[in-house]
Amino acid sequence: MNRIGITVKPNDERACKLMCELHRWLIERQCTVYIDEHLHQCTHCNIASERLPIGEMADKVELMIVLGGDGTLLHAARHFMNSDTPILGINLGRLGFLTDTPVGSMFDVVDDILAGNLKTKRHFSLHAEVWRGDEKRAEGIAMNDVVLERSAHPRLICFEMAVREQFVFRMRADGLILATPAGSTAYALSAGGPIVHPEIQAISVVPVCPHTLSNRPIIVPADDVIQLRLVESQVEAAVNLDGIELLKVEEGDRVVVRKGESISLVYLPHRHYFEVLRSKLNWAGQPEDRE
Amino acid sequence: MNRIGITVKPNDERACKLMCELHRWLIERQCTVYIDEHLHQCTHCNIASERLPIGEMADKVELMIVLGGDGTLLHAARHFMNSDTPILGINLGRLGFLTDTPVGSMFDVVDDILAGNLKTKRHFSLHAEVWRGDEKRAEGIAMNDVVLERSAHPRLICFEMAVREQFVFRMRADGLILATPAGSTAYALSAGGPIVHPEIQAISVVPVCPHTLSNRPIIVPADDVIQLRLVESQVEAAVNLDGIELLKVEEGDRVVVRKGESISLVYLPHRHYFEVLRSKLNWAGQPEDRE
Amino acid sequence: MNRIGITVKPNDERACKLMCELHRWLIERQCTVYIDEHLHQCTHCNIASERLPIGEMADKVELMIVLGGDGTLLHAARHFMNSDTPILGINLGRLGFLTDTPVGSMFDVVDDILAGNLKTKRHFSLHAEVWRGDEKRAEGIAMNDVVLERSAHPRLICFEMAVREQFVFRMRADGLILATPAGSTAYALSAGGPIVHPEIQAISVVPVCPHTLSNRPIIVPADDVIQLRLVESQVEAAVNLDGIELLKVEEGDRVVVRKGESISLVYLPHRHYFEVLRSKLNWAGQPEDRE
Amino acid sequence: MNRIGITVKPNDERACKLMCELHRWLIERQCTVYIDEHLHQCTHCNIASERLPIGEMADKVELMIVLGGDGTLLHAARHFMNSDTPILGINLGRLGFLTDTPVGSMFDVVDDILAGNLKTKRHFSLHAEVWRGDEKRAEGIAMNDVVLERSAHPRLICFEMAVREQFVFRMRADGLILATPAGSTAYALSAGGPIVHPEIQAISVVPVCPHTLSNRPIIVPADDVIQLRLVESQVEAAVNLDGIELLKVEEGDRVVVRKGESISLVYLPHRHYFEVLRSKLNWAGQPEDRE
Repeated sequence: MNRIGITVKPNDERACKLMCELHRWLIERQCTVYIDEHLHQCTHCNIASERLPIGEMADKVELMIVLGGDGTLLHAARHFMNSDTPILGINLGRLGFLTDTPVGSMFDVVDDILAGNLKTKRHFSLHAEVWRGDEKRAEGIAMNDVVLERSAHPRLICFEMAVREQFVFRMRADGLILATPAGSTAYALSAGGPIVHPEIQAISVVPVCPHTLSNRPIIVPADDVIQLRLVESQVEAAVNLDGIELLKVEEGDRVVVRKGESISLVYLPHRHYFEVLRSKLNWAGQPEDRE
Repeated sequence: MNRIGITVKPNDERACKLMCELHRWLIERQCTVYIDEHLHQCTHCNIASERLPIGEMADKVELMIVLGGDGTLLHAARHFMNSDTPILGINLGRLGFLTDTPVGSMFDVVDDILAGNLKTKRHFSLHAEVWRGDEKRAEGIAMNDVVLERSAHPRLICFEMAVREQFVFRMRADGLILATPAGSTAYALSAGGPIVHPEIQAISVVPVCPHTLSNRPIIVPADDVIQLRLVESQVEAAVNLDGIELLKVEEGDRVVVRKGESISLVYLPHRHYFEVLRSKLNWAGQPEDRE
Repeated sequence: MNRIGITVKPNDERACKLMCELHRWLIERQCTVYIDEHLHQCTHCNIASERLPIGEMADKVELMIVLGGDGTLLHAARHFMNSDTPILGINLGRLGFLTDTPVGSMFDVVDDILAGNLKTKRHFSLHAEVWRGDEKRAEGIAMNDVVLERSAHPRLICFEMAVREQFVFRMRADGLILATPAGSTAYALSAGGPIVHPEIQAISVVPVCPHTLSNRPIIVPADDVIQLRLVESQVEAAVNLDGIELLKVEEGDRVVVRKGESISLVYLPHRHYFEVLRSKLNWAGQPEDRE
Repeated sequence: MNRIGITVKPNDERACKLMCELHRWLIERQCTVYIDEHLHQCTHCNIASERLPIGEMADKVELMIVLGGDGTLLHAARHFMNSDTPILGINLGRLGFLTDTPVGSMFDVVDDILAGNLKTKRHFSLHAEVWRGDEKRAEGIAMNDVVLERSAHPRLICFEMAVREQFVFRMRADGLILATPAGSTAYALSAGGPIVHPEIQAISVVPVCPHTLSNRPIIVPADDVIQLRLVESQVEAAVNLDGIELLKVEEGDRVVVRKGESISLVYLPHRHYFEVLRSKLNWAGQPEDRE
């Protein structure tokens, strides 16, 4: 393995400097390095390596390194769908769930990978389509979550959900989150959803501020097709993928969500999911005394 | 007591017919009736009574009757701030918390009031001001809640809250709800807030999808001044009063919320708060067996 | 298929009468019927069929019919572990999640099964062992949940959880629920856990009144071994299986929980999980207006 | 002011040493010091001061100093009901809500009080009575909470609650917490209740693992009388006051809870409630980036 791609968090001094260091280090090890061509702003180092659109990386490189946070990785991930190219996320801040390698162990980890010690695990995405009658209006991919929510107006939206073409509920709420296990620790968690281990093939259905009190998060099999239909809504709603708006929707529009393609993430045997969880959620080993 | 004002839920056939009935019934009892002048659409009855802007009602009438739901009453209420004129809410659908008289007992209740049997209770409002630097940009009144929330963009907002000029927290969230006891059973309840009895002088502070897991609803004394300041926000936020947008706000803007003026609601001794609660929240007397 | 076993909810007049009816009906259809020998109290009918300990049913019968609620089925289920004998639960009250056939369609459903139209699905159980040092003190099986909780004394217990021998957290709480998907709609739901679809191979880890606010329900793969260890506890704790106490435990004791054997439940294609869910959780099709 | 009482957390070396230090310091300032007579175990110092049962302190001293945590203060508090003697809680661990003076500022704070700078605030208690028919079986006082809960057996209890003799709900649950504002940050918080500012005259009603999903915490006026009645319960239940069992109760027994007497706590103007809250609940000033 010696063809390595790199992308970094945009507009970030530190990420940029780190890339230069990493680049030099890789070149010394006879790697061929490809740099995301959108990274014009890094003027600290004089990198001679080939610049490549990130969309062409998956076919060219054998390892893709992302320097940044989960957001940067989410952005890069959509170009590696169903590719076997493993992605390694180096986290510049506090550990992320997708970028679970701290900066401090970056060189050790990459060294190890170059030496052939590579394990990976696949993370599935969600594929969302928005339909108006027979017309598909938009589609897209989310690694974390597909969200249907009210847009701009401070009014409830009303929608119906069906799973496997079976009616599940009609709900008035601020919105509804459909999350992958990776997304279960992002927006879904803030909305009261559970933490779902990344190896579980399931989608979390988490209401946001539901009007009826008896609604609860539901975990459905990842192979189920979930349909949402906006009903009785005088107000505008929006469909968001990983926190970016895909499309505004209106009464009668349908959102069809199914398990999408997957990416391959480098898996670090010495680091594990629950450690990251503990760190991110401030679970001290020793909770304080209540006395 | 014989000067009665009436307003109804707009664009509602049934409310309109009911108003005609009530109007006739009041005239027969020698009442002077004033009709909200905005009700042009009611063509079913030929009402000869004086039409009056609702803003002039408080000074003219001795009893204000609202036919509709809590939304209609919220709308009317802002014209009766600090007035002693009691408001009677007749609920056309399921019981409301503010409109707690069912249609079926409307004539009995009004009869009773005309006979001099009138008890009232006061409900306080929240007064909100939005400041940019030294300039007051907007102000308004809410009977249910003042909400600071992200607007349109699917990104967290970040804000700081101070109570009595003491810093309480910095929070990343979808928004924050400041609710009166009346509002505690509205949006605040959907967001996970507690039910606060209307006789308690307190404001509920309820986060909406907070990013940190340890945030909880807080109940603060109603006499405290609450300040919110939007910080670090690249995205637009909005301040809403009772579900209607007051103003868009941006980084640095401050929202100052304090107990506002109050309205006087007719209090029905034979009906009580917990009955309405039980009915609205589907608390059957006999919960099902878990076996 | 013509060898049928029957057991019913104990001490229940109605269940008893229904059994007599069902028994007669099956005999008319040339079935050989075996009655749970513990049902002495049913004196309404003069059943000549063989009485059998329920523990011997699995080997004898081709279909086991349970008349009662989920509790009755939970009780019977432990005798059908890893047996292929399908269990049909007839619910005498409101629909249950395991006993999802209403009384009214009992004869139709059984008719259909006798005619050869039988689909089944397997539900896994949890197997729990309690260890003190090197000694296994007790073990047992739960279809719904294994619960570690404080016993009698109104004091928090403190325990550590490990998954795959990796430390997850130390928690002070009233207790911890480990639930199967079937159990996700029982005690785990009351404690704030999500609803987990029965086809998902996962265990819900749900804290009961945790002392630290950042603890959340976690869904882990069903193949993971979960270990709980009671620490720092001056107070007695208990391990309960499906709501029945297995053993009292004390400081240092370990509870090891893994996916246990499974039972085979009759699956009704025309009835589906979400319908039962909606009915049990009072999700009206049309939630009330907030106005 | 020169008559000072002291009590400390029992069986705690550090508390004991600190008491010796404080004692010497007070004697040097010509104070008359009374030591809780139960503190036999402190052999580090040779204290010549008078030993006094804590029950006689309220009448003798002008300031009562408690060294320990909230638990120690809760214990001492019941001897100062309706007394004007201010209690100062010195916290030996992390700050408590009742013991909000850190050890480090103990001498400064006491110095200030001796100099005449003393502000106090009153905290009300709850008074609970248990009735069987016409017979009062037990009564007691709680500074934090009165809890009705299932005892020992892992089965739901069923009870009805009335406020002002008006039926509120019948609930199946693990239990129900009635908490003062001080108690709102203790067990009630773990069970999902809101944080209630200590100056609010209200009681939090917080269900523990309620069977029906639509139950929510309710805040009722502190002057209301709350009645609980255990119904349909084959299992034993218990009434606990501040985490200590008052009595076992059975079907038909009634628990009557009303605002009890109050204690006077030293109020530190430079320290405020929200600071303690932030510290206890791990609200960092700057929540981590979600990116």
